[in-house]
Amino acid sequence: MKKGSVRTLIALALVLFSFHPGTARLQDRDPSYRQTVDMLREAGLAGERGFDLLRRITSVGPRLTGSPEAAAAVDLSLRLMKELGFVNVHAEPVEVGHWVRGDTGKAAIIASGARAAIPLAVCALGGSVGTPEGGLAAPVVEVQSLDELGRKGSGLKGKIVFFNRPMDRRLTDAFSAYGGAADQRVNGASAAARHGAVGVLVRSLTFREDENPHTGLMQYDPRLPRIPAAAVSTRDAGVLSALLKKEKSVSVSLRMNCRNMGKVTSANVVGELPGSDLPGEVILLSGHLDSWDLGVGAHDDGAGCAAALEALRLIKDLGLRPRRTIRAVLFMDEEFGGTGGRAYVRAPQRKGERHLVAAESDRGGFAPVGLAIGGRDGRLLEKISSYADLFRPLGVSFIVAGGGGVDVGPLIEQGAAPAAVMINAQAYFDVHHSALDVVSSVHPRELELQAVILAALAYLLAQEGI
Amino acid sequence: MKKGSVRTLIALALVLFSFHPGTARLQDRDPSYRQTVDMLREAGLAGERGFDLLRRITSVGPRLTGSPEAAAAVDLSLRLMKELGFVNVHAEPVEVGHWVRGDTGKAAIIASGARAAIPLAVCALGGSVGTPEGGLAAPVVEVQSLDELGRKGSGLKGKIVFFNRPMDRRLTDAFSAYGGAADQRVNGASAAARHGAVGVLVRSLTFREDENPHTGLMQYDPRLPRIPAAAVSTRDAGVLSALLKKEKSVSVSLRMNCRNMGKVTSANVVGELPGSDLPGEVILLSGHLDSWDLGVGAHDDGAGCAAALEALRLIKDLGLRPRRTIRAVLFMDEEFGGTGGRAYVRAPQRKGERHLVAAESDRGGFAPVGLAIGGRDGRLLEKISSYADLFRPLGVSFIVAGGGGVDVGPLIEQGAAPAAVMINAQAYFDVHHSALDVVSSVHPRELELQAVILAALAYLLAQEGI
Repeated sequence: MKKGSVRTLIALALVLFSFHPGTARLQDRDPSYRQTVDMLREAGLAGERGFDLLRRITSVGPRLTGSPEAAAAVDLSLRLMKELGFVNVHAEPVEVGHWVRGDTGKAAIIASGARAAIPLAVCALGGSVGTPEGGLAAPVVEVQSLDELGRKGSGLKGKIVFFNRPMDRRLTDAFSAYGGAADQRVNGASAAARHGAVGVLVRSLTFREDENPHTGLMQYDPRLPRIPAAAVSTRDAGVLSALLKKEKSVSVSLRMNCRNMGKVTSANVVGELPGSDLPGEVILLSGHLDSWDLGVGAHDDGAGCAAALEALRLIKDLGLRPRRTIRAVLFMDEEFGGTGGRAYVRAPQRKGERHLVAAESDRGGFAPVGLAIGGRDGRLLEKISSYADLFRPLGVSFIVAGGGGVDVGPLIEQGAAPAAVMINAQAYFDVHHSALDVVSSVHPRELELQAVILAALAYLLAQEGI
Repeated sequence: MKKGSVRTLIALALVLFSFHPGTARLQDRDPSYRQTVDMLREAGLAGERGFDLLRRITSVGPRLTGSPEAAAAVDLSLRLMKELGFVNVHAEPVEVGHWVRGDTGKAAIIASGARAAIPLAVCALGGSVGTPEGGLAAPVVEVQSLDELGRKGSGLKGKIVFFNRPMDRRLTDAFSAYGGAADQRVNGASAAARHGAVGVLVRSLTFREDENPHTGLMQYDPRLPRIPAAAVSTRDAGVLSALLKKEKSVSVSLRMNCRNMGKVTSANVVGELPGSDLPGEVILLSGHLDSWDLGVGAHDDGAGCAAALEALRLIKDLGLRPRRTIRAVLFMDEEFGGTGGRAYVRAPQRKGERHLVAAESDRGGFAPVGLAIGGRDGRLLEKISSYADLFRPLGVSFIVAGGGGVDVGPLIEQGAAPAAVMINAQAYFDVHHSALDVVSSVHPRELELQAVILAALAYLLAQEGI
């Protein structure tokens, strides 16, 4: 690119189309919002404060629900919020499960045509039981779907079921592709156990072909035997599938000493900028503090936590005075079932509070592209859409109905309107729940833009209500 | 992220807002376009063919204008287009300059307080003369702008001028930030030479603070002495600037043996899918084959070339029959002055041809976010906007006035309407013109989406005209 095309681009940036041609432009109403958003953007993008917060949060390492590292993250987050000058900083207890991966997660192919066992890159799925101490070995049956299990029926008895349906690459929306394949991971073990299978291997949920297994929650049907469940890297899923086409009998050995350790008391971490006029009305920004344990949970969901903290920091450090309370909540236990979100709505502190909007950032720290806004009658979507001019210079190119998240689900059930920054997610599942979810995979400016958008949205909502 | 939030997202993806509420929706007109675009998307995203093309193009290495590698890239591109089944595949000669970096590009700080010289990470700017064989050394004067030179006046005689104004991080649009700082690189040397300076160091044009110098074109005013010009990494710009604040006299030694080698005949590479009805009316998709030499020009502009080729491949392999000609042009010499774009409009093959639309992809291979459409009376923008429903599922969230590029400039002057896919550019200048511009910095799906959008746009235009 040279100067000529740069000039064209600058000219182009000035010619922005209008989302809702009939709606009054911002400058007709309250010019101070425009100035405020400019200030938030300039203060945010000038540095890498959001990224620094991400580095701090992930400095305790992976934060598996119930783990000592998650406890350390709670302590660190309380300190961080106090350092940043937030008010009413406190932890709210959450009783959570504590699953540990153990120190063994191994698998290998035992094929008649191979001289030695072929190691497979696997990891236990979250919540899985371990294998017997010496491991197990069984012939493998490959299936593409849970439905296919019914058709294989009794042929699955004593077998390891290998779920190998890839995420549908043809979909533009990576979350849809993930959603279309995740049933194998979440429900595959019990579905296979129903037919007498002794274990399951699940193709990792990613578009990439590489050597990284991707973990994630699996759930047992309490009426069925609990059999071990592991994710296998996409590359090794390909190796195994190719062998199964070639050879009559292919067995896999699996050895894992993961286990559930019972209940632990953990916490949600809460801090806020109290509203000057209506402190009982809350605009909530949130992420989840727990993470998977293979990387450090940088995108999932260190980025969401950092964005929420940075949004409040920006508002505070600019000396803005929100009329309603803007609160940051770092939820515990999104990944193992959302106990933190449920504990939050039941906590005694909620008495007399009314949550107008509940935003959760849990789509990764990639570049923001839009906003999703919910609420029962569509009024909030209409209102925020009428402020599209305010958000467009922050990279928000569309505003749609939507929002929501595991942790804010209970708040939304109680009437809070969901809101979320929509992100370019093409690369999200490359790193999601894997060893690749590390700080260097987050771009400082992309994360900061998310924080600035959240700050602008929260401040606007705090002033205007819904 | 778990299943609950995935479901929310899928629901959300189905509720898309309308760009132009008054405009007829696609399904009211020609349902086959919707099917065609679905087919293009599915065929494109199913694999990584665009990324494979990028790997092929960059396999010759960096493709500096006039270099043997650029000549190899011309040969390779001709073979590639023939392999892909394009028609009228040929090279069109372009007389270009040939600048060589040489094998020496060194600089070091000589400060009174330091025991030894402190090496600086530098690279010659494109087009710069070398230093005298033994190098040069001179006291350094830091300035933030070309304007500031005038105020320093005669104090610059015999000095090395150090331009250290950073790209403005506070701007969301990275291209605007680049455009606002590039004058130092392009015109700094002659501006300094006017006041008797003997060399210039220019802060690298990137938001990152790291050790990579970023090259790029500089131009001499023919009326002034030609003095050597080098880019310095942002980290070392910081080191040098800090020393200048602390010490009375800081000198820098600079040694480079870059030089201009005179004219070479190179080529634009052209191939097409001829129109069935109106072959003389051309929809042009393009990128530039030449690159800088520190990386392999993967984003700039291997990605643009790969996207253009892949767009035509998709149209061809789906058996679509465009009514007008869809042509791919890989231009030579964008980076050193755009001789390829000027040669293209003058070539004898242009006789009897009319270019309706000229698209150039030269904004990197990152995720597409929108479309920019030009043309003299705004009719084409209006028309493409009326097809917004078609492009939205490909990640196109906005359609604005714009487009253009160095190589298609001459075509646009002759009346072709510009068009371009707009990209998330937050990370573009991290890699731009540096050693980081390598294939691994391009995401296969993000590149493929660009190709699919180009294919959909080109096919639509080939059927409908403008």
